[in-house]
Amino acid sequence: MRLSKTGMKMNRMSGVRAIMQDIILTMRSAKDVHFYNLSAGNPVVLPEVSRLWRKYFRQFSDTDEFDTVLGRYSGSSGDTHFVKSVCDLFNRRYGWGITPENVLVTPGSQQLYFYVINGAAGMCEGKHRKILFPLSPEYTGYANQGVHDGMMASFRPRIEKTGPHEFKYHPDFSKLKIDDDIGAIILSRPCNPAGNVISDEELKKIVSMAKEHNVPVFVDGAYSPPIPGLAFEEMTPAFDENVIHCFSLSKAGMPGARIGVAIGSPRYLAPLQAFHETMCLHTSAIGQAVAAYAIDSGELEKASEEIIRKYYLEKRDLALKVIADSFDDSIPYYVHKAQGTLFMWMWFEGLPVSSQELYERLKKRHTLVVPGEDFFPGLEDDDWKHKKECIRVSLTASDEDLEAGLVQIAEEVKYLYEAQRVHARA
Amino acid sequence: MRLSKTGMKMNRMSGVRAIMQDIILTMRSAKDVHFYNLSAGNPVVLPEVSRLWRKYFRQFSDTDEFDTVLGRYSGSSGDTHFVKSVCDLFNRRYGWGITPENVLVTPGSQQLYFYVINGAAGMCEGKHRKILFPLSPEYTGYANQGVHDGMMASFRPRIEKTGPHEFKYHPDFSKLKIDDDIGAIILSRPCNPAGNVISDEELKKIVSMAKEHNVPVFVDGAYSPPIPGLAFEEMTPAFDENVIHCFSLSKAGMPGARIGVAIGSPRYLAPLQAFHETMCLHTSAIGQAVAAYAIDSGELEKASEEIIRKYYLEKRDLALKVIADSFDDSIPYYVHKAQGTLFMWMWFEGLPVSSQELYERLKKRHTLVVPGEDFFPGLEDDDWKHKKECIRVSLTASDEDLEAGLVQIAEEVKYLYEAQRVHARA
Repeated sequence: MRLSKTGMKMNRMSGVRAIMQDIILTMRSAKDVHFYNLSAGNPVVLPEVSRLWRKYFRQFSDTDEFDTVLGRYSGSSGDTHFVKSVCDLFNRRYGWGITPENVLVTPGSQQLYFYVINGAAGMCEGKHRKILFPLSPEYTGYANQGVHDGMMASFRPRIEKTGPHEFKYHPDFSKLKIDDDIGAIILSRPCNPAGNVISDEELKKIVSMAKEHNVPVFVDGAYSPPIPGLAFEEMTPAFDENVIHCFSLSKAGMPGARIGVAIGSPRYLAPLQAFHETMCLHTSAIGQAVAAYAIDSGELEKASEEIIRKYYLEKRDLALKVIADSFDDSIPYYVHKAQGTLFMWMWFEGLPVSSQELYERLKKRHTLVVPGEDFFPGLEDDDWKHKKECIRVSLTASDEDLEAGLVQIAEEVKYLYEAQRVHARA
Repeated sequence: MRLSKTGMKMNRMSGVRAIMQDIILTMRSAKDVHFYNLSAGNPVVLPEVSRLWRKYFRQFSDTDEFDTVLGRYSGSSGDTHFVKSVCDLFNRRYGWGITPENVLVTPGSQQLYFYVINGAAGMCEGKHRKILFPLSPEYTGYANQGVHDGMMASFRPRIEKTGPHEFKYHPDFSKLKIDDDIGAIILSRPCNPAGNVISDEELKKIVSMAKEHNVPVFVDGAYSPPIPGLAFEEMTPAFDENVIHCFSLSKAGMPGARIGVAIGSPRYLAPLQAFHETMCLHTSAIGQAVAAYAIDSGELEKASEEIIRKYYLEKRDLALKVIADSFDDSIPYYVHKAQGTLFMWMWFEGLPVSSQELYERLKKRHTLVVPGEDFFPGLEDDDWKHKKECIRVSLTASDEDLEAGLVQIAEEVKYLYEAQRVHARA
């Protein structure tokens, strides 16, 4: 097909998509090899969560609602029952006082950001506006969502070393500039890939600066409490006149259903809903209708806390222990403060090779990770060595694979630093 | 929110969307009034079809597949089982010899056309390409899908009067020009709104002209056999190296699930799949997984033919009878040859008012239809009176409402022509 510029842009096989493709081909071409796969973004199917959904699906098949949920087009903002359940949940738990006009349901969060990015950035009233990511690194899935080039901006974060082998990113307020050239702000909290949680105070500062220029702040809560609750420390989702809290059921056991939810002022949601209606009419209603019951009963909140969060918290603790045991203390390795998500993020300061090269070397050790350099959407700062010194490690592997994979990383990294020392002495 | 140009374009509340909004407000503001609603696009929930889906949903909740279908991200082309079922169906029934790489599943057809229109039209290699609709009127839902202006083209059809009060549109091959400026061709077959089915021969001619310039032809089979089978005469879906047959489960009892399917060469589907993957990862898998079983058993094909098609065929026959009985024979009214879809299309030659004005007048008679003038995407031909002489009548109303509404239309139209005659004599 002869593609338009937009078509070509959306076909760009770059960044993590190219890595994922490479991983599939690698595993396919070595079928007899067992890989320690620490690259996956696909959540683990947890039997207790599956049982919960199975129960609600069976029940739903017997309701009177079934016929109209499946057999009619629903409204473009979402399934009526589900939207009400979402309102009740957030009003009950956080006292937000929201009503159905504060909610928009999309076929997964990914598509919501497509609306945000293309609806708010690009040419507008003679100005070229951008999407700002106030903290890098950030979710790589935003990177290719703009139909035009040059729609995103970011800048280097402030790095705080919080322990001998631990660090944390902070937004660098000495660099943060929010003005009329910014169409919208997006940040994930907890953050994929770093597992970082921007503090309440940091977020408030960003929100207040944005408010002065009528810029909306979309907080991507794909891992946030209350659902799926994948934060390992206390955190409260944010809500304000220019803040839109977005979450998804993908990490609550329903990635196959594609349900993303945005909660915010109609001032920002109404134009996104119109975009949504023009492009796809409405979101698949089945998963929403089933989830409504699981939210109403409180079971989904409970499962998020007691099953899903617990599972990944244990994985995180195991990973931290294995890292402490297997990494050579003399090596300048730093694990980002692991505050949430399915991932851990490791930084090797002064790594003698690029993270892409490290990825290739680890493949030979049958260990799959994701090199970090593609997690900096909007940050065209190629001089910054840090971008190529990090890797993302998934907590979705079995205990055995997680342990074995981390040991492989420890050995490879040690080899690289030692080779560099030998080389420097020679 | 400050919108970009794209954001504004996608927010344009024009055409049928504005009418639908007006209809909702009209009905809401006159709650005690019973309207004869002949405007709806929402299919009727047929009890036998609901029972079928309910049965398969229950069964699906007990399969082993359930956990992974719901609990994992699926591949971006569609659910593996569903894609195989689609291949088997078309190979069994039409001998197409297709494999999974010939299939792409999207969250409803609407979204597929967004990919097609923006992926193939607009600026490309210094050229500004357009989407061509070779036969007007055409589905109005395409009209606002382009992120830029001026992405669509069409031209007047040839009108054949096939009876005293019947007519049929044909593509006007004296005007049809397909060259390198066309990015893709889209046509609905059977056609919403006209209920027209472009003949095999007409389609072959278009396809062969398009093939010379490597232009793909997307045939929107939202009402086509085998599923949902809403053609009232024998017709065969088309398949060729540059033809993509698209269908949907929306009229097969699953509008709430949002499942659109495209079948064609990977040459055209692969770039659309990449677009899809970037924008929304993949389509909700639940409805697909359930539908796979209903396709495998042959029950969905059977229900399409024996329940859904039969239901609307009877409605069509009733409507034709009521029209013949209630319209004054001296009035130049013409019903488009009703060959399929949920709709009938009426043309009042030399109508003394615009179809928009007729719509307003019918509202006062508590009769709701859709004025025809917005069903001509790409046809910027405002001199053509025919555009404003047609209305779309939905077959989804009850027998009583369908009959009463058509009688109201007959009376209003008679009044309008008579008033014109009186006025002309005066």
